[in-house]
Amino acid sequence: MQVVASVRELRAHLKTARQSGQAIGLVPTMGALHAGHLSLVTASQARCDLTAVTIFVNPTQFGPHEDFHRYPRPLEKDLDLCRAAGVDVVFTPAVDEVYPPGSRTFVEVSGLSHILEGVPRPEHFRGVATVVTKLLMMALPDVAFFGQKDFQQQLIIKRLTWDLNLPVEIETCPILRDPDGLAMSSRNVYLSPEQRVTALALSRALHQVTAAWARGERDPAHLTDALQNRLKQEPSLQLDYAVVADPLTLEVLTRPQPEAVALVAGRVGTTRLIDNVLLTDTTTR
Amino acid sequence: MQVVASVRELRAHLKTARQSGQAIGLVPTMGALHAGHLSLVTASQARCDLTAVTIFVNPTQFGPHEDFHRYPRPLEKDLDLCRAAGVDVVFTPAVDEVYPPGSRTFVEVSGLSHILEGVPRPEHFRGVATVVTKLLMMALPDVAFFGQKDFQQQLIIKRLTWDLNLPVEIETCPILRDPDGLAMSSRNVYLSPEQRVTALALSRALHQVTAAWARGERDPAHLTDALQNRLKQEPSLQLDYAVVADPLTLEVLTRPQPEAVALVAGRVGTTRLIDNVLLTDTTTR
Repeated sequence: MQVVASVRELRAHLKTARQSGQAIGLVPTMGALHAGHLSLVTASQARCDLTAVTIFVNPTQFGPHEDFHRYPRPLEKDLDLCRAAGVDVVFTPAVDEVYPPGSRTFVEVSGLSHILEGVPRPEHFRGVATVVTKLLMMALPDVAFFGQKDFQQQLIIKRLTWDLNLPVEIETCPILRDPDGLAMSSRNVYLSPEQRVTALALSRALHQVTAAWARGERDPAHLTDALQNRLKQEPSLQLDYAVVADPLTLEVLTRPQPEAVALVAGRVGTTRLIDNVLLTDTTTR
Repeated sequence: MQVVASVRELRAHLKTARQSGQAIGLVPTMGALHAGHLSLVTASQARCDLTAVTIFVNPTQFGPHEDFHRYPRPLEKDLDLCRAAGVDVVFTPAVDEVYPPGSRTFVEVSGLSHILEGVPRPEHFRGVATVVTKLLMMALPDVAFFGQKDFQQQLIIKRLTWDLNLPVEIETCPILRDPDGLAMSSRNVYLSPEQRVTALALSRALHQVTAAWARGERDPAHLTDALQNRLKQEPSLQLDYAVVADPLTLEVLTRPQPEAVALVAGRVGTTRLIDNVLLTDTTTR
């Protein structure tokens, strides 16, 4: 496994692979890898000849009072996990390598960036869109892999890829959950055992709406009730939103649709957690 | 010469060339081609094996009261000029091909986009940055060629190319002038013979500051005086700005520098004109 820290080295490695006809898969991460990330690696290995993982805690997607400095950075453990998973190249750049002095260009996906997760985090998706564009342009992969857990993020990344005509395909991979149902997240390490019990309300509420959908319920008001009723039973959870929306525009549904996404977000103590479920014709309990 | 209107066809043509090892040059234009554009084609042919010209009047860089609808579109004449110049591929997309319904992503170069030309045209450079990023991603050229006449534009394009790690080199080509000194521009066709005489004040003022620089003058206040004195003699010219600035930040100079750019812009009747000159150690009268 090659571990590189400069764009120049990354490009040199991938250029050789590309010229020999290999398909390149990219898995952009902020490190603190868990089984969810490793499922992206597996998805890449199933479609591509070479898999590159990027580990970069991107400062431009954190707000001034967010957890940029305390975000977990277990680099040696992450590299061990990548090695064990058969990753070919890991890119671990410093902040200055990604944003040299004088950098001043941003990618903005209007309409999708200031709703839901973008309400409490108004510059978050501008930072995500910018760094993902840069990582895609550094690596020039055939396919890049993102998790469905950050549903709004994967949609924004697909949207910018289409809108800017980037020559790459974005594949979204299913959410991985712990046995108790909690969606895997690098931020789960912040939770105490008691907080973890509270956090389970999110996945259980999604389970309620999935069950209603599987029974044939399509009325958005009823689906939203099914989602919110469970969450209201958890006073320690500070709910930010719980909505049933269109999976391509994220507009809250006002009438029945054949496909929808249920999205929830809330805080447990100081930790912000999100989760979601896609509701389609094949959705079952 | 191939003339294509879809991204799919453009990519197919260029992919074949790329796979056979040819270097690709791209000359993005809004059509209404003149000798300035053709000098970009010549520059591309000197460095690349295949030269593609794009002709697209980009709606997102025009303000609501600007000349988008009356901007000249002499397509047949443009194609004849490209054919005569030995262009290999011309890309002439419709607006919907470049901006399909649902498009909502923008590239923004902060700091450089709302000064000088960006003051009267606040969304202009966002439109330029977005469409150029898209054209570069559609064509994936080795080198793209832009004219120095739009100095702020070529700087913004270089900046976004560096900042977003786009795998392309931007080459800026010198201004071409008519024998009377007027910088070539597709908008010069709007000028009456009398207006054209008024417009010459711009290039003549730049000539004054070049002469002062060549004599060894480096004091920004004196250089700016040399520039503005000539312009004040032309009451029919509505001056927007006349400044001596840093060529990489466009900040107005307050002390002597080894390199500078003198930039002028003004309106003659309803036609807005710009011009500039780079001042370096090799600048002579």
